[in-house]
Amino acid sequence: MKQTLSIIKIGGNVIESKEELSKFLTLFANLKGLKILVHGGGKLATQLAKKLGIEAKMIDGRRITDAENLEVITMTYAGLTNKNIVVQLQANNCNAIGMSGADGNAILAHKRPVTEVDYGFAGDVDTVNSELISKLIKADLIPVFCAMTHDGKGQLLNTNADTIAAELAVGMSEHYKTTLYYCFEKKGVLMDIKNEDSVVQYINKEKYEELRKDGVIADGMLPKLDNCFYALNKSVSKVCIGHSTMLTSKDELFTTITL
Amino acid sequence: MKQTLSIIKIGGNVIESKEELSKFLTLFANLKGLKILVHGGGKLATQLAKKLGIEAKMIDGRRITDAENLEVITMTYAGLTNKNIVVQLQANNCNAIGMSGADGNAILAHKRPVTEVDYGFAGDVDTVNSELISKLIKADLIPVFCAMTHDGKGQLLNTNADTIAAELAVGMSEHYKTTLYYCFEKKGVLMDIKNEDSVVQYINKEKYEELRKDGVIADGMLPKLDNCFYALNKSVSKVCIGHSTMLTSKDELFTTITL
Repeated sequence: MKQTLSIIKIGGNVIESKEELSKFLTLFANLKGLKILVHGGGKLATQLAKKLGIEAKMIDGRRITDAENLEVITMTYAGLTNKNIVVQLQANNCNAIGMSGADGNAILAHKRPVTEVDYGFAGDVDTVNSELISKLIKADLIPVFCAMTHDGKGQLLNTNADTIAAELAVGMSEHYKTTLYYCFEKKGVLMDIKNEDSVVQYINKEKYEELRKDGVIADGMLPKLDNCFYALNKSVSKVCIGHSTMLTSKDELFTTITL
Repeated sequence: MKQTLSIIKIGGNVIESKEELSKFLTLFANLKGLKILVHGGGKLATQLAKKLGIEAKMIDGRRITDAENLEVITMTYAGLTNKNIVVQLQANNCNAIGMSGADGNAILAHKRPVTEVDYGFAGDVDTVNSELISKLIKADLIPVFCAMTHDGKGQLLNTNADTIAAELAVGMSEHYKTTLYYCFEKKGVLMDIKNEDSVVQYINKEKYEELRKDGVIADGMLPKLDNCFYALNKSVSKVCIGHSTMLTSKDELFTTITL
């Protein structure tokens, strides 16, 4: 039987609060079993770009990664944020190793083709090097991924952290029984955005269509849910969305996504 | 018999020139045998600090790493420079993995004690995790170290790249026959600083004392040579100083240090 592997993604809001991040990392360090952490970038990159007088480029609300912004992302995601997380996990006796998709050729991607929009150095994932990541896990290391990939030809690429988490979960399901956890500031998918306790406990495809039609699931939650179903369709065992406290407390309310 | 492992350190001047770096990385990628790369930081950190209005603090010509400068160093050394090197090595079919001393708890250090001078977050190395690094090497990975360590209590530290290279060579000599190469812009230790071809081919302890007395070896070369003898005294097999081209061409002139 395959061993269980948890892929946990934390978002920008956790990273931006020193206190929240520290709380989460203690919780993550104490989580039993094999695990991988994926972190988003948060506002640090935007703040650094602003300080350096580099313009944040957006088209239709989507970020455009030009060469200057890619440098800023590399400094903050792979540098400051990743090492800050690794050093804190080490202090919690969790043998973390910071990774970008370029390290060990872990995640190979290609630059998104230019259609109406040129997203710049945005990468769409091609393959996850599950052999390499398995070797690291077998060496008792806990991989900590930032949201960067590479094209194998010398180009770093910016890839959405939710997507990286889903692709890692899919890629690793070859060797492990993988569970994907999307941690964010809410307790899960909410029926009523104003009521923190109105968590939808189970969502399957039919329910998703229904909630979508009713406008309960909209905006930023749509690509997140699409990532969930993508992962489930590609043999990931379980996907959960909720607050990071769902990782340890059994009574905690969160959303479980099934096919 | 122990396998041979080459520890190669490149300095800031190679990193600062896109062309020189690219040339070196092709050469490094093609180097036969087991290997580890250690890179310095170059002027990128100073330039970024300047752009951000962060003052570079120096006492007696030595850099003081305060909290702001440590952030800048983390962004440039562990972020931009390290990933830039890794992604280029990957394009050269060299399975590089970027590392700081915090990753995998690879290099444990302590904050330099405050005496007359407070160097800030400067780290003096305590232990190299040779078991972990051996595991990475056995997994066919090529570790690429930036000049950062950690204290195991959640603090990143800035450590001189020459020192990191020497400590890695010493630490790894438990498992491998290690050779340490310091690559820089000259062909080796020069008898006459104005004559690029006046390379001293062999330096032992007596010769070192002599060259030091005569003022041939001075300034920045002194700590470099001290690192060389430290490594040789701690069972490193061979130490060479010279231009990076010494790595491949057998006819190339460079300096070999012996006890």
